[in-house]
Amino acid sequence: MPDDGLIHADLLIVHGDVFTMAGDGSGYIEDGAVVIAGNRIIETGASGPLSLRYRAARVIDATDRAVLPGLVDAHVHGGIALLRGVAQDSDSWLRSLEPFVNAMSLEALLAGSMLTVIEGLRSGTTTFCDNSPGIAHSLPFYEKAGPRVAASPLTSDAVPASSDSTGALPKFSDEMRALGLIETRDLIERWNGAGAGRIGVQLGPRAADFCSEKLLAELRDLSEKHGLKIHMHLAQDKRETAQVLRRYGKRPVELLDSLGLLNERLIAAHLIDCTDKEVERVARSGASMAFCPSSLLICDGILPPADVFMDCGGLVALGTDETSSNNGANLFSEMKIACLALKMKRADAAYMPAWKALRMATAEGARAIGLGNEIGTLEAGKKADIILVDLTLPSLVPVMRRPVRNILPNLVLSARGDEVCLSIVDGKVVYENGRMALFDEKDAMGFIRKTAGEICLGAAREAAETRTAPFVMTENGEY
Amino acid sequence: MPDDGLIHADLLIVHGDVFTMAGDGSGYIEDGAVVIAGNRIIETGASGPLSLRYRAARVIDATDRAVLPGLVDAHVHGGIALLRGVAQDSDSWLRSLEPFVNAMSLEALLAGSMLTVIEGLRSGTTTFCDNSPGIAHSLPFYEKAGPRVAASPLTSDAVPASSDSTGALPKFSDEMRALGLIETRDLIERWNGAGAGRIGVQLGPRAADFCSEKLLAELRDLSEKHGLKIHMHLAQDKRETAQVLRRYGKRPVELLDSLGLLNERLIAAHLIDCTDKEVERVARSGASMAFCPSSLLICDGILPPADVFMDCGGLVALGTDETSSNNGANLFSEMKIACLALKMKRADAAYMPAWKALRMATAEGARAIGLGNEIGTLEAGKKADIILVDLTLPSLVPVMRRPVRNILPNLVLSARGDEVCLSIVDGKVVYENGRMALFDEKDAMGFIRKTAGEICLGAAREAAETRTAPFVMTENGEY
Repeated sequence: MPDDGLIHADLLIVHGDVFTMAGDGSGYIEDGAVVIAGNRIIETGASGPLSLRYRAARVIDATDRAVLPGLVDAHVHGGIALLRGVAQDSDSWLRSLEPFVNAMSLEALLAGSMLTVIEGLRSGTTTFCDNSPGIAHSLPFYEKAGPRVAASPLTSDAVPASSDSTGALPKFSDEMRALGLIETRDLIERWNGAGAGRIGVQLGPRAADFCSEKLLAELRDLSEKHGLKIHMHLAQDKRETAQVLRRYGKRPVELLDSLGLLNERLIAAHLIDCTDKEVERVARSGASMAFCPSSLLICDGILPPADVFMDCGGLVALGTDETSSNNGANLFSEMKIACLALKMKRADAAYMPAWKALRMATAEGARAIGLGNEIGTLEAGKKADIILVDLTLPSLVPVMRRPVRNILPNLVLSARGDEVCLSIVDGKVVYENGRMALFDEKDAMGFIRKTAGEICLGAAREAAETRTAPFVMTENGEY
Repeated sequence: MPDDGLIHADLLIVHGDVFTMAGDGSGYIEDGAVVIAGNRIIETGASGPLSLRYRAARVIDATDRAVLPGLVDAHVHGGIALLRGVAQDSDSWLRSLEPFVNAMSLEALLAGSMLTVIEGLRSGTTTFCDNSPGIAHSLPFYEKAGPRVAASPLTSDAVPASSDSTGALPKFSDEMRALGLIETRDLIERWNGAGAGRIGVQLGPRAADFCSEKLLAELRDLSEKHGLKIHMHLAQDKRETAQVLRRYGKRPVELLDSLGLLNERLIAAHLIDCTDKEVERVARSGASMAFCPSSLLICDGILPPADVFMDCGGLVALGTDETSSNNGANLFSEMKIACLALKMKRADAAYMPAWKALRMATAEGARAIGLGNEIGTLEAGKKADIILVDLTLPSLVPVMRRPVRNILPNLVLSARGDEVCLSIVDGKVVYENGRMALFDEKDAMGFIRKTAGEICLGAAREAAETRTAPFVMTENGEY
């Protein structure tokens, strides 16, 4: 190494429009640079001075590129991604999905997470909060493919667990509870901190109507013991409220509070069947909210109350939920929909400005899932999870820097997702110019297609017998 | 030519998942084919028999491709596309836009239409209802670049025409009216039917508050004489209503009716400041509606009443409005937002199913703009405006054909737009695999960037003086 007085770095990104998202706004740096050593950012600043101070193994010229923290998908069931588009436009998404869910194998869950990762990485997502049954089976793929993951199983001890009827209360099974706890403990032991820290574990009780009090309490204890987040659905539909009320005489928020679950370790998804008072109670407890606007609008025609949650000082992260309801795993699309739907709800064009949506998918999203010290902003000391977005593509043209800097609103409100040209996770390039760096995408897609074919065969009879809405639309030639 | 008994065609598309959109649904053909001779479709059907019957100069294998009618953008102000992202998140989009509008030249209007065409063609749009001042200046580009266009000038005789205040009534100028009519007549004479019929003209009074009764009546007469559509904003904001009420003692819908403008020749954009009764009156008159959900949600936080219009039997087409408000020109994104916003308004997940959104952007959109006999479906006799969409890209995987055919819901709710791999207009390939076929995109983008730079310089002082919301967000480091 030449003795030129320069500091050695591994990666130097220069001449970008850098949005660090540090502080309260966008943390913009014009002609900005990001310096990476190992898996961490060691400095950000103006390209001129940093170029003079550092020598790097690879220098990336980010001229005409926006440089952003990798996006955080705070709530995504990768496992059921293969069921994309089979249950939409229906009075009951869950019922329409059921014939396909019943035809799924463990392989299908893996294939689903693979598809989610492929689609997500191609749209700028670098962290996936993947909440899926059998998630351990998918983690070797996550380890290889390179993204960051906060993995949680979808734990339930209710029998049957798949019905969406508001009728009979399911029974709780001691055996399933024990199995769920074994799965969770194994997951923590084998995977928490694996992949040089890229893989983390969260606890994943499905919801208050799918878990006994006993299971919830044991997961709460595990969460306290290991300092892990509990990632669960809360007040996600009327069924949950009805069942919890019948069983305990309490509504779901009240129940969770009485069990000691309403606190800063909780990530609550959806909060659909909630009064504003209940939303406030959750927000003020320090819990965060996973906000999945597309999915809930498609499944239920309802916008989750992210505005109320934020107004009460709560931290909101953005999630795609699952391609089987969203129907994509594209956080650029999700940011736009979050802005538009909240502006519509509030009848206020100035509400939910683009920069807040980008913070929701980066800085705030990272804090909400408990990784605020590690990722979400481009700052010295943070892990190097970074995306580059090509500003020469027509959806982001023209770039203006003054008198108004139009890059950020166009990233949020116009980008399709395919403008992402480079993704770095933990200091490593995982995606570049249409190619996955660490795995064979073609092989993965072959496996995904084959598995999807098996699901179709398996679901055929039940879909025809139950005549789900999308089955009927297919038959009628509408689909 | 060999005497093999085969019929000669120019283009044969085979083995596609063909959505003809003929009839009332999706008109799906599995392993389908489309046969094109000259600028028209001569047959559609199953690939097997058609392959045996036709010989074509070019055969396109559409295996793993959806084959659709090209999308129709029924309301787009191409001219102001360069002002993308400078006026969002603001109490008054129009006021925030003004410093930039005031810095525009005729060249900027051309550059804007170029950008709209480039972005649109790259996302499956083949027909643009471009309603822009100085549109004649952009038509040579449309002629060369290949898309279909229904061009209308943005005609106004109000002085000043740019204010959005609800205060003083503008005066109407005889000279401007005369100039507007000359521009319109010239446009009809020079351009209506040009480009072998690809270029059509519509009449484009800006709105009832920007046009005198006299101008509206003269445009009505021209429309009757030439059988041309009148494409105009109607009830687009409270300003319009307030001004029209003060001037005539009537609300805008009433005024248009009294002038004989409320009929099947009218394409009415927005209908924002309308009672449901008024929406019904417009729908029942036979007029159609241009529905631009993203734009109105971004500018005003209001969803236009497309549901009411449809419920009254009215024909609704989809539009992107302009990248300066949308912020994209991407009808795939617009279809998703149309579905989600209408489901939200009606609190009904089954409302506005995906197939209706696709019809809105194809068959119904074409009828709404008066081209229903020419385009909008893939049927024998129609002009060959066709797009191919790559179903192997992750956002559209997996493809299922039974028991539920998931292709259409995923096209509407998941596609980013970049899955479009081939676009044909009037029988000619205009876009293929990332490349424009008929013009140099790089040259065009250079011109667009240069022109945008000039606008920024020109707008700097006024934006700083008036401190528009986006200017302040830029200054504050939020943008």
